[in-house]
Amino acid sequence: MCQLLGMNCNTPTDIVFSFEGFTQRGGTTDHHTDGWGIAFFEERACRLLMDCQPSATSPVAHLVRSYPIKSLNVIAHIRKATQGEVNLQNCHPFVREMWGRHWVFAHNGNLIDFHPELDGLYSPIGSTDSERAFCYILQELRRVFEGRTAANPPTPVEINAALKPIAADVARFGVFNFCLSNGQVMWAHCSTNLYFIVREHPFTTAHLLDTDVLIDFADHTTPDDRVAVIATAPLTDNEVWYKMLKNESMMFVNGHPL
Amino acid sequence: MCQLLGMNCNTPTDIVFSFEGFTQRGGTTDHHTDGWGIAFFEERACRLLMDCQPSATSPVAHLVRSYPIKSLNVIAHIRKATQGEVNLQNCHPFVREMWGRHWVFAHNGNLIDFHPELDGLYSPIGSTDSERAFCYILQELRRVFEGRTAANPPTPVEINAALKPIAADVARFGVFNFCLSNGQVMWAHCSTNLYFIVREHPFTTAHLLDTDVLIDFADHTTPDDRVAVIATAPLTDNEVWYKMLKNESMMFVNGHPL
Repeated sequence: MCQLLGMNCNTPTDIVFSFEGFTQRGGTTDHHTDGWGIAFFEERACRLLMDCQPSATSPVAHLVRSYPIKSLNVIAHIRKATQGEVNLQNCHPFVREMWGRHWVFAHNGNLIDFHPELDGLYSPIGSTDSERAFCYILQELRRVFEGRTAANPPTPVEINAALKPIAADVARFGVFNFCLSNGQVMWAHCSTNLYFIVREHPFTTAHLLDTDVLIDFADHTTPDDRVAVIATAPLTDNEVWYKMLKNESMMFVNGHPL
Repeated sequence: MCQLLGMNCNTPTDIVFSFEGFTQRGGTTDHHTDGWGIAFFEERACRLLMDCQPSATSPVAHLVRSYPIKSLNVIAHIRKATQGEVNLQNCHPFVREMWGRHWVFAHNGNLIDFHPELDGLYSPIGSTDSERAFCYILQELRRVFEGRTAANPPTPVEINAALKPIAADVARFGVFNFCLSNGQVMWAHCSTNLYFIVREHPFTTAHLLDTDVLIDFADHTTPDDRVAVIATAPLTDNEVWYKMLKNESMMFVNGHPL
């Protein structure tokens, strides 16, 4: 399996604290050593950094930890291969363009015998069940919103309604926890394991589970800031994380779970 | 305007030497300071690193110079904005997926009043003439090869024949020097300025124009290696670079210009 990390905020925020703990699971505190990746949105485009090396030792992950990139929407993933070889084209997150925006997707789980009919609009580059699921989701969203263009895209609320049955359809094939973002909002679907926390005023301290790092968010925030963090397993040991229900889908907007 | 750098090889090669000189043009020896990017193919997928900071001082460019990534096809670009703001979504190279591969494109030049009719299959994320041209090229290739899929894609030779008239069509709107790759081969089109060199056995020394660095390629190669480097202006001062002709298109395969 793999581990997911998502962040959705109302003000550009760096993910260095969460990423610090998360990447320890790629070789130090856990065995997710088959590559990793992180996508940071900047407006409608994302910056994607990834590596086939374990995240705990990768020079690219070191760059991410030492060069804070602020973003409203971030998705990260560390991989423990279940389907597909260990190589770059099988690393999450996956990125495609739709309606003049990047779309970013990362998956935790395993889909058995999932080979949807793809019409060629989006084709997998690698050999994972995850990328097939992503291509299928985008294809189905295009089908639901046929005729919509970059000049006239569906709203996040419209997309949210369309996404739920598509996610449920794919989830019939196995474990399907995912984070998806188009830079406007973040969608999270829980099939078995997905947690989130919303940090907002009054901010307090947080202590990482995977490495002995403590932060006082009050030192780094304003009273108006709000940040939602989504993860396969809680990243801190002194905060209460909400465990999403089986088959629960949520949309995060400006750090608010809806 | 901007500057282009492309590399096509028959064996995975790092681009550190060329990139070292090239990035000096992003703030030190030249004024291309409005962002930069580099895409390295690994099989059918590419790894894209980019930054809005000048390449001469960017921490991400520092990573590229210090962490040699070997690849058969690389495209890099440093930007001097002519159309579109200075931000990530306007940084080259641009990447899209077609027929189960990444396609990477970078442009040097300026297209005047170029607003092709795009059918929505590929939409620009940013606001540059360059990304519009890339979306148009992919759309037209899809149109020419309608019915082809990831399982049955056209060959590089077929694509090459289809690409020439599309490139000529776009070039009517202004200056259109570009590098394009799908990870199999590299296409280069010269509208005004594009040079290339092929390095092969017997390898000799090369000295960078933009910074005082000398390399003896004989120390880093085998007799079977062959590397083609394409650039807006020669990168070395002791080698003979071939200046491409106006409106000349070339396809590079395994380091061979065809």
